[in-house]
This record gives sequence, C-alpha cells and structure tokens, in this order.
Amino acid sequence: MSLRLLVIHGANLDLLGKREPHIYGTTTLDEIRQALEASAADRGHGVSWVVSNHEGDLVDALGQAMGKVDGILINPGAFTHTSVALRDALLAVSVPTVEVHLSNIHAREEFRRNSLIADVVTGQVSGFGVDGVYRGFEMLMDHLERSTAD
Amino acid sequence: MSLRLLVIHGANLDLLGKREPHIYGTTTLDEIRQALEASAADRGHGVSWVVSNHEGDLVDALGQAMGKVDGILINPGAFTHTSVALRDALLAVSVPTVEVHLSNIHAREEFRRNSLIADVVTGQVSGFGVDGVYRGFEMLMDHLERSTAD
Amino acid sequence: MSLRLLVIHGANLDLLGKREPHIYGTTTLDEIRQALEASAADRGHGVSWVVSNHEGDLVDALGQAMGKVDGILINPGAFTHTSVALRDALLAVSVPTVEVHLSNIHAREEFRRNSLIADVVTGQVSGFGVDGVYRGFEMLMDHLERSTAD
Amino acid sequence: MSLRLLVIHGANLDLLGKREPHIYGTTTLDEIRQALEASAADRGHGVSWVVSNHEGDLVDALGQAMGKVDGILINPGAFTHTSVALRDALLAVSVPTVEVHLSNIHAREEFRRNSLIADVVTGQVSGFGVDGVYRGFEMLMDHLERSTAD
Amino acid sequence: MSLRLLVIHGANLDLLGKREPHIYGTTTLDEIRQALEASAADRGHGVSWVVSNHEGDLVDALGQAMGKVDGILINPGAFTHTSVALRDALLAVSVPTVEVHLSNIHAREEFRRNSLIADVVTGQVSGFGVDGVYRGFEMLMDHLERSTAD
Amino acid sequence: MSLRLLVIHGANLDLLGKREPHIYGTTTLDEIRQALEASAADRGHGVSWVVSNHEGDLVDALGQAMGKVDGILINPGAFTHTSVALRDALLAVSVPTVEVHLSNIHAREEFRRNSLIADVVTGQVSGFGVDGVYRGFEMLMDHLERSTAD
Amino acid sequence: MSLRLLVIHGANLDLLGKREPHIYGTTTLDEIRQALEASAADRGHGVSWVVSNHEGDLVDALGQAMGKVDGILINPGAFTHTSVALRDALLAVSVPTVEVHLSNIHAREEFRRNSLIADVVTGQVSGFGVDGVYRGFEMLMDHLERSTAD
Amino acid sequence: MSLRLLVIHGANLDLLGKREPHIYGTTTLDEIRQALEASAADRGHGVSWVVSNHEGDLVDALGQAMGKVDGILINPGAFTHTSVALRDALLAVSVPTVEVHLSNIHAREEFRRNSLIADVVTGQVSGFGVDGVYRGFEMLMDHLERSTAD
Amino acid sequence: MSLRLLVIHGANLDLLGKREPHIYGTTTLDEIRQALEASAADRGHGVSWVVSNHEGDLVDALGQAMGKVDGILINPGAFTHTSVALRDALLAVSVPTVEVHLSNIHAREEFRRNSLIADVVTGQVSGFGVDGVYRGFEMLMDHLERSTAD
Amino acid sequence: MSLRLLVIHGANLDLLGKREPHIYGTTTLDEIRQALEASAADRGHGVSWVVSNHEGDLVDALGQAMGKVDGILINPGAFTHTSVALRDALLAVSVPTVEVHLSNIHAREEFRRNSLIADVVTGQVSGFGVDGVYRGFEMLMDHLERSTAD
Amino acid sequence: MSLRLLVIHGANLDLLGKREPHIYGTTTLDEIRQALEASAADRGHGVSWVVSNHEGDLVDALGQAMGKVDGILINPGAFTHTSVALRDALLAVSVPTVEVHLSNIHAREEFRRNSLIADVVTGQVSGFGVDGVYRGFEMLMDHLERSTAD
Amino acid sequence: MSLRLLVIHGANLDLLGKREPHIYGTTTLDEIRQALEASAADRGHGVSWVVSNHEGDLVDALGQAMGKVDGILINPGAFTHTSVALRDALLAVSVPTVEVHLSNIHAREEFRRNSLIADVVTGQVSGFGVDGVYRGFEMLMDHLERSTAD
Repeated sequence: MSLRLLVIHGANLDLLGKREPHIYGTTTLDEIRQALEASAADRGHGVSWVVSNHEGDLVDALGQAMGKVDGILINPGAFTHTSVALRDALLAVSVPTVEVHLSNIHAREEFRRNSLIADVVTGQVSGFGVDGVYRGFEMLMDHLERSTAD
Repeated sequence: MSLRLLVIHGANLDLLGKREPHIYGTTTLDEIRQALEASAADRGHGVSWVVSNHEGDLVDALGQAMGKVDGILINPGAFTHTSVALRDALLAVSVPTVEVHLSNIHAREEFRRNSLIADVVTGQVSGFGVDGVYRGFEMLMDHLERSTAD
Repeated sequence: MSLRLLVIHGANLDLLGKREPHIYGTTTLDEIRQALEASAADRGHGVSWVVSNHEGDLVDALGQAMGKVDGILINPGAFTHTSVALRDALLAVSVPTVEVHLSNIHAREEFRRNSLIADVVTGQVSGFGVDGVYRGFEMLMDHLERSTAD
Repeated sequence: MSLRLLVIHGANLDLLGKREPHIYGTTTLDEIRQALEASAADRGHGVSWVVSNHEGDLVDALGQAMGKVDGILINPGAFTHTSVALRDALLAVSVPTVEVHLSNIHAREEFRRNSLIADVVTGQVSGFGVDGVYRGFEMLMDHLERSTAD
Repeated sequence: MSLRLLVIHGANLDLLGKREPHIYGTTTLDEIRQALEASAADRGHGVSWVVSNHEGDLVDALGQAMGKVDGILINPGAFTHTSVALRDALLAVSVPTVEVHLSNIHAREEFRRNSLIADVVTGQVSGFGVDGVYRGFEMLMDHLERSTAD
Repeated sequence: MSLRLLVIHGANLDLLGKREPHIYGTTTLDEIRQALEASAADRGHGVSWVVSNHEGDLVDALGQAMGKVDGILINPGAFTHTSVALRDALLAVSVPTVEVHLSNIHAREEFRRNSLIADVVTGQVSGFGVDGVYRGFEMLMDHLERSTAD
Repeated sequence: MSLRLLVIHGANLDLLGKREPHIYGTTTLDEIRQALEASAADRGHGVSWVVSNHEGDLVDALGQAMGKVDGILINPGAFTHTSVALRDALLAVSVPTVEVHLSNIHAREEFRRNSLIADVVTGQVSGFGVDGVYRGFEMLMDHLERSTAD
Repeated sequence: MSLRLLVIHGANLDLLGKREPHIYGTTTLDEIRQALEASAADRGHGVSWVVSNHEGDLVDALGQAMGKVDGILINPGAFTHTSVALRDALLAVSVPTVEVHLSNIHAREEFRRNSLIADVVTGQVSGFGVDGVYRGFEMLMDHLERSTAD
Repeated sequence: MSLRLLVIHGANLDLLGKREPHIYGTTTLDEIRQALEASAADRGHGVSWVVSNHEGDLVDALGQAMGKVDGILINPGAFTHTSVALRDALLAVSVPTVEVHLSNIHAREEFRRNSLIADVVTGQVSGFGVDGVYRGFEMLMDHLERSTAD
Repeated sequence: MSLRLLVIHGANLDLLGKREPHIYGTTTLDEIRQALEASAADRGHGVSWVVSNHEGDLVDALGQAMGKVDGILINPGAFTHTSVALRDALLAVSVPTVEVHLSNIHAREEFRRNSLIADVVTGQVSGFGVDGVYRGFEMLMDHLERSTAD
Repeated sequence: MSLRLLVIHGANLDLLGKREPHIYGTTTLDEIRQALEASAADRGHGVSWVVSNHEGDLVDALGQAMGKVDGILINPGAFTHTSVALRDALLAVSVPTVEVHLSNIHAREEFRRNSLIADVVTGQVSGFGVDGVYRGFEMLMDHLERSTAD
Repeated sequence: MSLRLLVIHGANLDLLGKREPHIYGTTTLDEIRQALEASAADRGHGVSWVVSNHEGDLVDALGQAMGKVDGILINPGAFTHTSVALRDALLAVSVPTVEVHLSNIHAREEFRRNSLIADVVTGQVSGFGVDGVYRGFEMLMDHLERSTAD
C-alpha cells in the first residue's frame, strides 16, 4: 500500500547547512528533501514537503492534511518549545508522527529540553544530525507499513 | 445605535466540526458565523470576521480595528496560552472584549489553564461549546448597548 | 420535562449590592434570585436556592441534592479558591454545573486565578457581573434541555 | 466620639489558657475580653465580641458589621493562613483593622508565615502574647481617635 | 483500663456508600460506626462519634475533647488538605491519633498527596477502604492499651 | 485458597532493633519474619522473604515473582524516596501491594514525604512501628482472600 | 531594676519625615528618639541609640552590645530583607527583641513580606507608623520588666 | 567603510504613536525610520527596514540577511518574551545587535522582565522611549565602526 | 575497521516481552540481542552485552569498558531518571553513545521526562519500541564508521 | 537651565580597567569621570561623583542628595542584585535615573539577570561597555533638559 | 588509644587517575589507600577500606561497621546526590564522619551542589583533590583523638 | 619562594569564642591569627589579616590585594550567603582561594546551604571548627607551593 507522508520543517531550518554548522551540520534542506523522497520512492510512497518560518503555515498545512496523510515527520525548530498551535494541529491530524531534532536538545539551553509536542507524537529522535532524520523517516515508514499490513 | 463588532478565531479553529469532535463539538465555523451575524443583525449591529492560524494576522486585524470597532469576541485557540502579541493588540484596541473557549480549559493539560489575555479582557466563557460563543456574544452586545445607552 | 435546578451562592455573596460595588455591581442577591426563578419558571423548571457563608452549609446542601437535582449554578465566592470539600461534593452530585464569577477573577490577586472546582464543572463564566449569572443559567438550562431531550 | 469596636477571635482561640500554654500563654479568652472591654470603656468606646471555630460565623459577623463598626481587632487563629472568605469580608467592611497573633508566626511552621489578610489590614502585631492584643487594641483606638478627630 | 476513643469523620463522609462508590466503596458510615463500636466494646472501651461537613464542628468537638479522650481516629475527608484549624485542634488535644483515608490519596489529584495533619498524628493508613478504618482503629487501641499498661 | 505472599524489606532494615531505636523501635527483622510467617500460616498461606540493601536485589526478586505471587508487603526503606526501578518492578508484577513504613514519614525530613511507589500500590501504612507491619499484612491477606473468594 | 535598652534604625531611616511621607509619615527620627528616651526615662531605664545606613555599623553595634544590653528595638529598614549578618548578630546578643516596621510590609512589594530576622526576634509590629514604634517599645519594656521581676 | 544596518520592529510597533501613548509615546514609526536613516546617512551607512506583526516575517528577514548585514537594531515588541525562533535567527546571523524597548520592561507585568534574546545580543536599552532607539542606534554604529576600523 | 560496541540494558529490561506489553511490546531481550549481534556482524563489528537490575553492575561494566569500546547503546530503564553514577560512568568512558527508550518517555509520568544522561550522550531515540533500538544501533554504527573513516 | 547630576559607581567599579578586562574593558573610572564631566560641562551642567564599595556610602550619598540633584546615573555593580537599601534610597530621591551596566548582565550568571532597582529607575542600558555609560548619560541629560524646558 | 577508621569510596572512584584527570587528578585510589594507611599507622590507628560502585555494598559495609568503627571518611561519588540509603546508614552508625569531594562540587552541574549526607556528617571538604582527602582524614583523626582523650 | 597570603574574616567573626560557642567553639579570632601566622612563618610565608563586619571593607581589601597576594583564605560569615560584591572581588583578584566555615553550614537553616562564592573559589572546608581553618590554610599553602614550584 502506498503511504502519503508529510515532512515538515519549521523555524530557521531553511538556513540548514549555512547556520551554525558546528551545531546543525553542513547538509542543506534540499539534500535532505532529495534523500527522503528517494527513500520513500524506494518503498513506493509519496512525500509532501512543507518548510516555513511561519508557525501559521505549518498549522495551515497540517489542517489541510487532515485525512489526507498517513504519517508525519516533523522538525519544528524553535516552534518545538513555543507552539501550542502546532501541538493542537498534530492532535487534529492524529496520525503516527516522528519528531526529529538535529542537535541534542538536552545538551543546550535549559528551555530546549521542553518540547510541547513530544507527548503527542509517536516518538522522538535527537542529536544524530541528518542521520536522525533519515532513520526517523525509516522508523515512521516501518511503523506505518506494519500497521497498514494488519 | 448600531455597534461594530469584531469576531476573531485563532489557531486550528478553521477545523471546527472536524477536529476532535468529542472535545470541540460538530458545529462548523461557518455555522457559528451565520449564527453570530444573524444575532447581531437582529439587534441592528454589524460583524467583522477574522479567522487565521497566523498570530500575525490576528494582530494585524486588531491594529486595523483600532478606533473602528466597539466590541470584540475572541477565541484565540492555542494562541491563548502563548501570544503576548495578541494581549498587546487587545490593549491597543481597548474596547470591551469577551474571551471564549469551546472546551473547559481547566479540565485539560495544565498549561491550558493559563490565558495570557484573561486579565485584559472584560470576561471569559469556557466549557459550553458553541453555546458559550452565542451567549458570550449576547453578553458582549448587552454590555455595549447598555454602555452606549448612557 | 421539568428540570430541578440548584443555585448556590457562597462566601460574602449575601452582601451583594452593598459590598465593593465597583467590583461586584449594585444588583442584590434577592434581585438575582427573582430573575433566575422567573427565567426558570418561563421554561417550566424549578429552582432551589442556597446562600451561606458556611462552607459546610454548601456541602450539606449538595449532599442532600444527590439524585434530586438535574443541574447546578454555583458561585462559591471565596470558597472557589480554598474548598476541596466543595469540589468533592460537586463530584458526589455529578450533574451538569456552571461556575459563575461576577468579577473577572483573572484581573485581580494572583490566587484568585486558581479555582479548585473549575476542572470538575461543565463550564465557567466570569467578569460579566449579573449578566454572567443570567446567561450562565440559560446555558445550563439549554444544556440540560438538550440532554434530556435525547 | 464613641467608637464601635469589633473584636474577633477564630479557630481554637476558645481554648486559650489551656491549649499549648508554652506557645500561647495561660491567659484565658475571658480575661482578654475583660481587659479589652475595660480598656475601651476607659476611653468611652464600646466593644462587640465574636469568638468561633466556624469560619462562616466570622464572615457572618463581619457582614453584619458593615457600616456599624469603626474598627476591628482580629486574631483569626488558623484561618489566617487558609481563609480567603475572611479576607473578602474584611474588604467588605473596610475599616481600620489590627491583626494580632499571640505567638511569633515567623518562628514556627513555614506555612504560618503567610497571612491571607495581612495585606488588607492596617497593621499586624505578633509574638508578644496577650501584651500584643492589648497594645494592638490601643494602637487601633489611637488610630481611630486621631482619624475621627480630623 | 477503659479507653475513651473519639472517632471523627469530616467533609462528605456522610455520603459514604452512595458517593463515587468506585472510589469510596459501598459501606455506609452507619455500618462503620457499628463496627467500630462493637470492636471497642469487645475490648471494654467507649466511642464518641462526630460527623460533620463543617470544619468548625470538628474543631469544636476536638476542643471539648481536651483532657476527656485517650485516642482519636480521624478521617477529615477534604479538610485533610485545607484545614490548619484541624491541625491546631489536634495539637491542642495531643493524644495518640490515627489518620485514615479510604482511597489511596497518593493515586489521585496531586493536591491530595498533601495532608496538613500527617506530621502531627501518630500514623496514617490509606487506600484499604473500610478495612483501613477497622485496622487503623485496632492499631490505635493496641497502641493505647500498651501505653496505659506501662 | 492458599495465597503466595512476598514480603520485601529494603535499605538498612536489616539493622532493625539496633538502628535508631527511638525512631524504628527495638523489634528485630527476625522477630517480624516469625510473626508474619505465623500469621500467614494461621490462614494457610505461604510467605517468601526478601531483605537487601541492594535496590537491584529487590528488583530481581520482584521480576522473578511475576506470576508467582498473589500479594506483596513492602517496606523499601530509603528506596521509597529514590527508586523508580522499584516502582517499575511493582508495576510489572501488578498484584495487590501494601507499602509500610515503621516511622511516620510525614513527621521527619521533607524528602521523606514523597514516596515514588505510593501511587502504584494498593495502600500505605505509616507511623505505627511493627504494629503497622502486622496490621498491614492482615489487610493485605483480607483483601486477597476477599478477591479470590469472588 | 534599670534596663539597658538598645534602639537600632537601619537603611534610609535617617530620612524619616522627608522620605515618601505617604508611606512612612512625617515624624522625624529625632522626634522618635526623644519620645523613646522619655518613655524609658519614665520607667527608669536607659536607651542607647544607633542609626546607620551601613549594615556593618549595625553589626558592630550589636557585637559591642553583647552582655551589655537587656533588650533591643530594631527597625532595620531595607536590611530586614537582605541581611543575614544582622540576623547572626541578633543571635549573638540573644536578648528579647522587638522588630518594628512603620509601613505594612505585607501590603507592598512581594519581597518585603520576607524578614530574615523575624524568626529570631521575640515579636514584630508593622503598619502602624510611629505608634508601632512607641507601642513596640512599651511591649519590650513590659516584657523585660516582667522577666527581671521573676 | 559603509555599514549595512538592519532595523527590525515586531509586534504592534506599527501602531506606535497611536497605541497607549502614555506608555509608548507619540512618535510614529515613520518618524523613527526617518531619524535612523538620516543618522545612518550622516555617517555614510545604509539602513534596511523591516516591520511586521508576523514572527515569521522577522525570521525570514534575518535569514535573508545572513552575510549581508553588519549590525542589527531590533525591537521585537511582544516577541521579545515568546519567540525562540527570533533568538535562533539572531544566532544564525551572528552580528553585533542592539535590543531596544521603548518602555521600561522591568516596571510592568512580571513576564515582560524576561527577554529570550537578551543573552544573545550585544546589549540592551530600555525605558527611554525613542531616545533609546536613537542612542542605541548610535552605540551600534560606534561599536561597528570601531570594530571595522581594526 | 572493526568496532567494539557495548550494549547496556538496565532496570527491569530483563522482563521485556512479559512486562506491561501494551507499553513495552512483546519482543524479548534475547530477540533484541540476536538482532543487534546480527546487525553488527553484518558490518564486521563485535558486541558486548550487559543486562542488570543493579546500577552498580552497569557502572562496573562501563568502568571496565574504558578504552576498550568504541561506542555504546544504552537503555538504562528506570536508572535514566535516578542515576548520577551512570552519568559519571558514561563521562568516564567518553565514546559516542546512543540512549534508547522503548516507550515515549514524554507521554507518561512527569518524572520520566527528565533523563540524567541525555545531555552527555550523542543522541536519544524514544517511543518507537524495538525499532528504536535497531535504528539507534544503526545510527551509532554509521556515526562511528564515519568518524573512524576520517 | 543648569542641571545638578549625580553619578554613582558601586562595588568593585574602582577596579575598572584592571579587573577582568575581557568583561569590563580597559577604560578606567577616572577616564569615565573626565568624559562625563566634559560632556556635562559642554551643556552647562554640573556633576557630583560618588564611588564606593560600601553600600552604606551610596545610601548616605543618595540621602544627602534628596532635593539637591536633578538626575542620577548609577552603576551599582554587584549591589544591583542584592541591595534593597539602594532601591529605597532611589525611591527617596525620586528623580530621573539611568541604570547602566558595562557588561551584558543577561549573558552571565542567572542571578545577574535580576536588578532590584530596574523597576524604579527611568531606564536601563547594558552590554555596551563605556559607550553605554556615555550614551546613558546623554539620554539622562536629554530627558532632563526636555522636562525642565516645559 | 587506637582508633578504628573506616574509609569508603563510592561510584566510579575505582577509576581515579584514569577518569577525567582534568577534574579528578591523576592520583589512583591505591595511592590514596597507601597514603591514608600510612598516615593512620603513624598515629597508631587502623583503617578499614571499602570501594564499590554498588550503593548496597556501601550500605552493607556501614551496617556491619555499627559499633565497630570510631570514625568514617567517605567520598560517595555520585551517590552523594542520590542515595538516601547511604544517609540512613550513616545515621545508623552515628560516629564522626568527614565527607570529601575531590572536585569543587559547587562549580559544576547544579545538581552536584546538593549532598544528601552533608547535614548528617561532621564536616565536608571539597575542591582540593587528594589533598582534601589527606587533610580531611587528619581532621577526622584530630577530632577523634581529642574526643577520646576527654 | 615566599608566598603572600591574605586571610579574611567577615560578619560577626570578631565575636568568635564569645558568640554561640555551642556552634562556633571557644577559640578567639586572635588565637586563630596567631596560629595561622605561626603556620605561615614556619614555611617562610607572610600573612595579611583583614577582619570586618563591613562588606565594603572586605571588598576594599580584596581590590587592594589585586596582584599583591598569592592566595586567600576567607570565612565571610553571613556574607557567604548574601554578597555578590565579595564574589566579584574574588573574581577580580583571581588567585587560589579556600573558603572556610566553622560550623556545618548544611546542618543549619536552609539558606545557609547556598554560598555565593563557592563556585569561584578553589575549595571549601566546613564543619570542623578551627581545625578546618588550620587544615584549610595548609591545603592552600600546599597548593600554592606546588604551583609555584612548577
């Protein structure tokens, strides 16, 4: 069965590869997109892609995705720590979701340890840079394939 | 005297009727709009209508409303708990305002108990679903009619 | 179907109309009683009325009301912030309940923001003075009429 | 001018003289009453006297005193730390008030350091046993005599 | 030696057997009374019995019990978490006391974990329903019999 | 029906009778063992006995007890306040459990008021020394006998 | 017996009568000194007088007073809330002490509610302006006279 | 050397001069723009200008400014207290930055004392109205001119 | 290059497959061991395996691993939230480490949100059951292979 | 009109130029004095100068300045975070005041973020080294000149 | 008189000399043992030596030492911050004890500032590496020799 | 090499030997001075000596010591818990420093557990009375001799 996957990147992630590379690495968001699309295509799945620095754009996209996507990979960037709207939008869509952080959010400022969405997603990967995105995406697909196979 | 009333709905409220109906009910935002417009028309008042998942849109709308509206009904959704900008915009407009929440915000996650605008509005209604919107709107009109009658 | 409605007013509400009128308004509790009884009578419902400065009186009244009332409107006054006994009594009765506050409890001392019963009632109205009592009572009746109509 | 003075003693103060004398001393409440009445009579003033272990009784008494007393001396006992109703009742009466504690409330359990009425009374005396009651009463009369002399 | 035992039940415990039976069980307070009186009579002791939803009644009863009782079993209900007056009254009486809770107060709302009397009683039993009352009462009698036997 | 009962004593309880007798009493753990075994034998039940200062030993014992015991009496000693592992092990075994403390844990250092297992056990007894162990054990057996009798 | 009394005024109290008279009144420190000296002389006692904006001066004075004074009246001003050194110095001298505050420290900024010396003095008077100083001084003398009379 | 300066104004600052003038003054944002552009032109520098009520617009603008601006003056308005995204964007751009607030953020609501960007900017000016903007801008230019002169 | 990998499982993980399967799944620890060893063998790496309910065993194992392992996968179970010793041991070994949790630790009790080792490991995976273990192990090997390839 | 300006430097600021130059810069306090005096002289104003490591000296100076100065620039150094006496002294003088910090107090230890005087001064400048002192002084003079010109 | 001294080292201290030498130094635990034994032998005292990463081992050792040792030097390592069992064991033994930390526990992570045993030992030395161990041991022997000389 | 050592004693330490001897012992400060001077002289080092109840004196002394002392022993007394100025002065001097407390600061009032200088000194000794001063001084000299020997 072909899965409809939604990948969301939030605040400042458009700068990936350029912004504080010692923290976030040198891979660009375009490279991540290509890797995820290839990975999904390999399994016969499709990927929708949303990137924005506007919390409202992410919420809009999630609202429109209600009933139209099977799983979500999300890296909200800074919105992780401040957006209840995003949490509510994820609750509205209510599909398996993996939350990914490139850096180890537990080894930085105290406020980064708190994610407002962590308790409403399926699972979380942090600290392994783009590897975490790729492996998180695979876990999401594995999880969905197994569920839909039932 | 004809009142100019502004009705504002924030994050994820465009999904009303579809999103978590056990919490938010099955009435859509369009149905609410029609009910409020009818209710205002009955009393000879006009309604402006703003719906957005973008905090900035709500702040823009409030800024433009300065001096042009007589009262506000607002359900900020998730922005209730995170937006100081909305609070400041309400302070800027400074007209009687009713804050409405469809669900009982005190019976959910702890963070929902805190509203950043509650102490700068006239009053708050929560937990009675769309009834709360309708009754809240009536209280607002009653309050304004009485004031302008002085 | 005729509803049995219980209206409860707690600490210092017997002073309504005389006590700090800039905060609580000039309407007396007797006037509220007459208005609520008229409003209930219009719909064919009956009202029981309890007023006391004794937390124990309110708890007694609620205990006696178990199984004998269909809905409750309660303004506990100061007991809102201190009475677990009242909370437990409401849980014991377990019927739809509206909590009303005349003043905006969020715009006063910090401790008034916390209601010990807010998460066990159906909904809450605050800040609209006696209008809030009347509209809250209507919401309660609407809610009960709809439920009993099922 | 003859002053109408209200003296209120709350929870467990009826046991004075018998209860934990190493903390509260051996003077009984009757002896205090006689001393205060004599002290008031000397100056031509009258004293009303309320003692109860029921918070509601104190609130009732304060409500009835609205507009009928010129000053209050209150030792709420344990209600000091738990009664918002008492605070509200004092706000309703709104006359000069002295809060007295026999023991040093700062040298005992942490929760005794917080008085819910301390910021709405004129002043507070604690730690000097019955001397504090007598001197506090004198300060109250001095304060009122000076005010009414204006 | 015949012991004078005082048994006190506070807020909402008059509803026992009817109120939230999944939490508090189906035994009524009358049945508990009979059981405790029988249990005391078996050992040649006497029981005084106090039940009230009024904090003040419990404080009055304790005050009158000073010097006239040898031990206390108390289930203050909701007053457990809010009454400093009760704590002070227990300190005044100052006899061995067992605090009993029918439900497991640690497995419910956070605020129920805090008992204002727990550090001034001899011991506490919670979570074993009426068994806890009976066994707690036995522990109290055992404790007192052993003490008075010295 | 014969019950399989597990009795667990944790940190420093091997020193019972010698360690701080003014707090913990003079009865030794061997005497407690004999009393509990006799008490169980009287009712036709068996007792397994675990004592260790090693948190891991207690967790091992609980893991091995999964499916092999019908009820547990546990006094974890200091592990009460620090061991999430013990909590998880109790959750794994998931049988009726009574938590016992010899001293009144609410009348000592603040940190002793918090038990990490209290909300996952059936009930708790504290402050009555070895009496609490015996009566707690009886309550456990009563509870289990009643359940298995259904 | 003639008492040796030490009166200490701390930070900014040299400005009394000029500084924020709506809070602190119009009486000057010199006038207070004369009143206290007269009051002491009436009873045959002597007064030492220390005024300084330097915490160290107050600590020096207290150190030198060890064994040479019988009682202390202290208004530390702002040092009330910040000086552990003053607390330690009072502990070193260890004689009956009355702490006085002209304004009601509970009705101002939150941090003024905390006194670092309140639990090591005999008692505290606040909110009655210079009356509090005079009556506090009398309470101190009464207390000392009674003690030394034993 | 000619500097490229970015000036950013956030939430509700478009209302400057109209909104709560007793707090924010009567100067409009256009007048500030002209003053800053003139001040920069005097020194041969250029100014980019961003004003928005949308957090995302500010983040977009900062992202685009990476490597293209030499210094930033920012008044985020309400975003100061809520936007981690803005903080991260400033970290991404990583040039000398002055944070300006027209009002004294320490003399208003408690939550305004916390700035999420204060520890990642060069310095902060608050409380001096538009003077603070002008002087802050001069400090920024001074700082940059000195650095680039090295 | 062949990597030496250490896999550590802590408190109660020996019960995997049997314990609370709705939370932890039905895969046993033996099955995980076989999967990880196969996965490592495929890449030519070796696996050391440590399982214990004794915090000290894990610390011993880590101490002995100093200088002898290239990477660590650790699921400390309950020790995650309580063991500073484990944190210190990981700091002593100081090699890339992945922390894995089978359940979503953010969607359970509040105390499970805090990991004492999260800020000293390379990254964390939670909520994806055994998939998280396998993918986490792959990320660890990828990370190490890339590092050692430099 | 000639202004009387008071410049105050507190704890450890006498070491300026020598102490931790990477934080506080290399300019000495004498150089700052000359710069400020020149700046004031240019505008026809006079400067009083106070430097001390004794909190009491600063409080003395402010007390003596009551009614004799038109504006204050103050850098209290460490007293910023600990001195209520200084706050009270500033309230006593009650003239426009600028608070200056050389370093960015928000980017250092947490406790430095709290200033006890920030809410009672006109405004605050921090993080721009001696530039902040000079520009802060200019803002103060601008502010005063404008006020006195009215 | 010959003293029986117990020296205890806890979590990860077996790695001393190898583990993070920039924090803990390069001296090994064997070298420390030899130094302490020599130092004790010089004075005619004997040393028992316990090293373990198992909290339970330390508790066992202390239990066995009851009545058999005269003084204790303990460096619990990480158990300092997490072990109530150790605290209780020290209370059980109840002999003069010195707590030693090689690193300055106040200059590292916040949680290291809290020692669960600090208030039940005689004194504490931290931050001076092995010197602290040696000098702490000398202080212990001095203290004991003086006591036993009485 | 001859070391220049600075010994500082703060608030109330001039009273040593007289003040609360059950806490602080009976040795006077003069005796400590002689002991430390002898101890330093033995090794060929010199001692400067500062004692004051004035925080400012200690700060002055440290400022003057910049570049002129090689090591510091400091017992700030009560200033330990309140003086940021002292902390800053120690940072300014920046030489090896030992902080000494005669009493066990962890076994007294909660606020004494927090030292504002503990994280900027080399190490801390508490609870061993004057022995702690002597041994702390030796550790300081040992540390400095070793450093200067490099």
